Amino acid sequence: MAGNSFGEAFRITTFGESHGPCVGAVIDGCPPGIRLGPEDFIGELSRRRPGRGALDSPREEKDCVEILSGIFEGRTTGTPLTLLIRNEDVQSAPYEVLARLFRPGHADYTYYRKYGHYDHRGGGRSSARETAARVAAGVVAGKILEPHGVRVLGYALEIAGIRASRFKPEVIESNPCRCADPEAARRMEQAMIRAREEGDSVGGVVEVRVSGCPAGLGEPVFDKLDADLAKAAMSVGAVKAVEIGDGLEAARARGSQNNDPLTPAGFKTNHAGGILGGISNGDEIIIRAAVKPIPSIGREQETIDREGLPASLRLAGRYDVCAVPRIVPVLEAMVRVVLADHALRVRALGPPAKP
Amino acid sequence: MAGNSFGEAFRITTFGESHGPCVGAVIDGCPPGIRLGPEDFIGELSRRRPGRGALDSPREEKDCVEILSGIFEGRTTGTPLTLLIRNEDVQSAPYEVLARLFRPGHADYTYYRKYGHYDHRGGGRSSARETAARVAAGVVAGKILEPHGVRVLGYALEIAGIRASRFKPEVIESNPCRCADPEAARRMEQAMIRAREEGDSVGGVVEVRVSGCPAGLGEPVFDKLDADLAKAAMSVGAVKAVEIGDGLEAARARGSQNNDPLTPAGFKTNHAGGILGGISNGDEIIIRAAVKPIPSIGREQETIDREGLPASLRLAGRYDVCAVPRIVPVLEAMVRVVLADHALRVRALGPPAKP
Amino acid sequence: MAGNSFGEAFRITTFGESHGPCVGAVIDGCPPGIRLGPEDFIGELSRRRPGRGALDSPREEKDCVEILSGIFEGRTTGTPLTLLIRNEDVQSAPYEVLARLFRPGHADYTYYRKYGHYDHRGGGRSSARETAARVAAGVVAGKILEPHGVRVLGYALEIAGIRASRFKPEVIESNPCRCADPEAARRMEQAMIRAREEGDSVGGVVEVRVSGCPAGLGEPVFDKLDADLAKAAMSVGAVKAVEIGDGLEAARARGSQNNDPLTPAGFKTNHAGGILGGISNGDEIIIRAAVKPIPSIGREQETIDREGLPASLRLAGRYDVCAVPRIVPVLEAMVRVVLADHALRVRALGPPAKP
Amino acid sequence: MAGNSFGEAFRITTFGESHGPCVGAVIDGCPPGIRLGPEDFIGELSRRRPGRGALDSPREEKDCVEILSGIFEGRTTGTPLTLLIRNEDVQSAPYEVLARLFRPGHADYTYYRKYGHYDHRGGGRSSARETAARVAAGVVAGKILEPHGVRVLGYALEIAGIRASRFKPEVIESNPCRCADPEAARRMEQAMIRAREEGDSVGGVVEVRVSGCPAGLGEPVFDKLDADLAKAAMSVGAVKAVEIGDGLEAARARGSQNNDPLTPAGFKTNHAGGILGGISNGDEIIIRAAVKPIPSIGREQETIDREGLPASLRLAGRYDVCAVPRIVPVLEAMVRVVLADHALRVRALGPPAKP
Repeated sequence: MAGNSFGEAFRITTFGESHGPCVGAVIDGCPPGIRLGPEDFIGELSRRRPGRGALDSPREEKDCVEILSGIFEGRTTGTPLTLLIRNEDVQSAPYEVLARLFRPGHADYTYYRKYGHYDHRGGGRSSARETAARVAAGVVAGKILEPHGVRVLGYALEIAGIRASRFKPEVIESNPCRCADPEAARRMEQAMIRAREEGDSVGGVVEVRVSGCPAGLGEPVFDKLDADLAKAAMSVGAVKAVEIGDGLEAARARGSQNNDPLTPAGFKTNHAGGILGGISNGDEIIIRAAVKPIPSIGREQETIDREGLPASLRLAGRYDVCAVPRIVPVLEAMVRVVLADHALRVRALGPPAKP
Repeated sequence: MAGNSFGEAFRITTFGESHGPCVGAVIDGCPPGIRLGPEDFIGELSRRRPGRGALDSPREEKDCVEILSGIFEGRTTGTPLTLLIRNEDVQSAPYEVLARLFRPGHADYTYYRKYGHYDHRGGGRSSARETAARVAAGVVAGKILEPHGVRVLGYALEIAGIRASRFKPEVIESNPCRCADPEAARRMEQAMIRAREEGDSVGGVVEVRVSGCPAGLGEPVFDKLDADLAKAAMSVGAVKAVEIGDGLEAARARGSQNNDPLTPAGFKTNHAGGILGGISNGDEIIIRAAVKPIPSIGREQETIDREGLPASLRLAGRYDVCAVPRIVPVLEAMVRVVLADHALRVRALGPPAKP
Repeated sequence: MAGNSFGEAFRITTFGESHGPCVGAVIDGCPPGIRLGPEDFIGELSRRRPGRGALDSPREEKDCVEILSGIFEGRTTGTPLTLLIRNEDVQSAPYEVLARLFRPGHADYTYYRKYGHYDHRGGGRSSARETAARVAAGVVAGKILEPHGVRVLGYALEIAGIRASRFKPEVIESNPCRCADPEAARRMEQAMIRAREEGDSVGGVVEVRVSGCPAGLGEPVFDKLDADLAKAAMSVGAVKAVEIGDGLEAARARGSQNNDPLTPAGFKTNHAGGILGGISNGDEIIIRAAVKPIPSIGREQETIDREGLPASLRLAGRYDVCAVPRIVPVLEAMVRVVLADHALRVRALGPPAKP
Repeated sequence: MAGNSFGEAFRITTFGESHGPCVGAVIDGCPPGIRLGPEDFIGELSRRRPGRGALDSPREEKDCVEILSGIFEGRTTGTPLTLLIRNEDVQSAPYEVLARLFRPGHADYTYYRKYGHYDHRGGGRSSARETAARVAAGVVAGKILEPHGVRVLGYALEIAGIRASRFKPEVIESNPCRCADPEAARRMEQAMIRAREEGDSVGGVVEVRVSGCPAGLGEPVFDKLDADLAKAAMSVGAVKAVEIGDGLEAARARGSQNNDPLTPAGFKTNHAGGILGGISNGDEIIIRAAVKPIPSIGREQETIDREGLPASLRLAGRYDVCAVPRIVPVLEAMVRVVLADHALRVRALGPPAKP
């Protein structure tokens, strides 16, 4: 009811605030017998972590996952997995000024309207810190998908209006933009530096591709695979639009162009983005998410205080300039969670071993 | 689990196939005491119905709603409402050829892969016919919202690449495109006629605006208001993208432009589309859905049969050229369902009367 | 949220009131490919129907099931099944006096306190009429279980304090008590006649046995198989206690007596009633439900009216003397629903056919 | 799906195994603004803890609750509460012999059949240790109920066949049986000592009474208040029967005796146990649970090993003789959880404060 869970057969519940002792996730429905240890999370959590380059906020966290339950002799047991990530670098002091003023573009105002209070120390529950728990859950989802050849790959398609025109997956992790086009990555980085110098921030578009997904995932009518992917992506803070396949461009095509002809060798084109009638068709799944510019900027902003009186706010401290690179692993994680959930709903990837 | 329900506090379950005896919905969670009769559904169902103009498929249905349960003395009782809409004009014969061939762009292929069969008579459960049940449920949701001043208005923003540039709500229902810009509507209609003459179809963009929505609707983290709106919109067949507020354009703005400054009189701008951190902020909610061109076209198409052998398919019969006008009331209905659900989750609109 | 659904993987939602046009159920999650027609329901619904003997209320209904959705060419499709049972013998007039007075032992008072109104025409939603929908859903659940050899058998173990001491399953349907002990059945019948002559009613105990259930059904911790069976049984009106296996007697045994020793040939005893740690152990599942005497009696009773003023109530009309015989098929149905739900949750009975 | 969550509006998910690092609970749906600290849990967890007397197993745990999320400045925020209780006294060695043999009366066998493995170190997830998380969740539920005057009181009604005949609530916590009849408590204790001397165990009956519960809690049809109480009680390990109000005795009464007459001053009797038609009627709620004798006994028992070969098992170590006293706070907790959930579903206790 309170919206902190996602999924049915593979159900994750996240908890924790940015400035409390930890964030984490409980996963109910993970099949037994999956080999899992704290080391499995290091890579993905480090991808999500800030501090990779000059453009990130300097918060430095190790983000180790403690597995508090659901493991016996190095394998999942089928009981709830609890994943805990401690908040090690919690400095609430810089946020004290925010106890009175609502930051534009943040959830402070709406939380206050909803709950009668808000956690001014870095956003509390609405902070991007919560996504560390999603990334950890996505690692477990990946363990379910990978043995079946399902691969999920995300990258920056666009930052600050600069769009990638080439696709070289091998360069994604070697540039701070997580862009698959090295030349575009350079221009994106320059745009980010420029924005930072001007006390501003930029947005962009993340694309996620799924290969190896079997046909038949997704439930008709409401729990369509694309509907759940859209919800999953839109539930990530800063995402303002979601596209499947050709997305908005499909609205401008004609039926004769947009229909993907079927041949004995498979679909001839993939305008649909791998989903037809809400069900995976065996082709590559393509999803894009538009990410707004980070609302925390260095410039003076107009706002109000808790009493509704006008105020001026200039945020101290350093902030990320662009959320896109760090959202890439978060969206990958959410896509994995959706796929694992739907795969387990139909047992498309095989039931748990029975004696 | 099987995905035919939507919502938590206001929960709709739809049922029925395009060529079975009926479609319908059960609503669990409707508050007691709401005045409701079959006449309340006539207007909205007639808006969804084809046959309004030369551009629509000629299927002619009266779409009367029978209320089978949940009503006593003309008011809801708080028990499940069952809404039944009979399928009166069911001619399965024209579809017989489809028992063997998968229609490109339709769900035939994925249903067959998932269930081992599919209902070739007009799409069965995946047919747009199912949306009549959604529209009926939306009428009930509207009855919950309207007394509180929440108004939901949808219209065609774009058809066949032609975008409206003016907003005159009073003309929406007086042109076959449901466009709020009469001049754009004329050009859209011409584009639709042209596509039909060429045996083709076109897509477009629907925009829905919600005024009067109180702040505080939406749950943090996963069941964000925008996440549920995105799922609701994407669960409507033919929708390939969803935007909130500035949507994709937000990805190209800077933080200093995109942040909506707060003033004692409210937000100065509304780039966010009325939702911050997944919670309504009291401003107008704006959602857009990109609708793909209708896959049923008059041209010959390449496909395969159930045995995987290549085949050529030319659909007989007449089909709509563009789904946009008829999807407008469906998306309005889904937005109403999401809002009623979230309003009842927080009882934002007042609890049911207690003695 | 509003409590009209039951189950997760096999999810039934019932609707309808005793004096509205119909009762019915939507089943979401029924696997595709099951042969099903209206004739499959006749037997079970006729078992639930009153009017079998001199001891039943004379309401005469044919209780035909219309299948409104989810069927194509005589088989389930995997889409929602809608089962409709019309209320044919609706005479509201005898109930008019109840518009003002709360019947003791009925839900009138609590519905009024909860909703601010109640349906005085025979109980509305709280009427036993609703159980016809459960029986219909149980028929579908049975279709899932029976091919796997799971058999569910219910009978009256006790009526009016008279307890059966023999078990002859072949006589259950040949006496009006549905008792497996023909001699006890005679005495039960006499006690029921005596109670009727005295304007009174009696209660009893129903036992349900499940043979052929595979081990492994039930989820640990909360959704234990016995926990869900207890909820299912207690959700049937008039049930005031539920026992599994030895039930209350287990509380009086010692561990050395109550533990069921394991041998290579299976369990030596079955005090546990086929469930250990909430999971079926492969042995016979035994569940008992205590049924209170029917609250509608011919005697004058003390009550209050809607204004809270004291009143005297004597119910006109004829009522059943004992709910036990008619509750037998209802409890069997609920047990089948629970088992089908848990079987589909673990796919213990095999996944739906995939191409 | 995997059954580790309970409740809808107040939803608890428990996690953890007896011999892992911890047990705990995430609570989603707790209203904001409730004062809560680790000290609030000490009393109830110490009531559940063994080691109170000579009759308990000697495991010694401090059972401190760490609140990992959901708290800000000493009050709940409305975000998920995570409650962690570390397992401090984990000695797995005594259990090593159990890696091969199934303990009769325990879940070892069914877990092995379901998951293909089981945690032999003290039962793993099926251990009574899990109930510490339920008790902690019950403390939070109590914080919601208590300000409204709802009081929940449990006690041993019967142990080893000895039934209490007096009700002195003030003596409950001063005898090791948690019995409200001091004289019966003495005889119960003697019976427990005798059973222990004979290497055996005993069972009993726990009764829980709820005073101050408002009318109107409970949803009709499936989520009846008594149905959810029955599920909650039966989901506690060792519980084999649940009664509401007169329970089994109601099956032996006549309608004229069992109906509770209504008067302007309230119900004249309370055979119904405070629930009519699944909805609380404002009277005292009475629920009883039959608890089987503890299956871990000192005597030699017949069993099989993982290969299905016959074996003999004699458990080393000391075990509780009777689960009843320690189950009292667990059942109280589950009753509180059910009531808080249903109260929040109808907002019967007032909505969260809105600015």
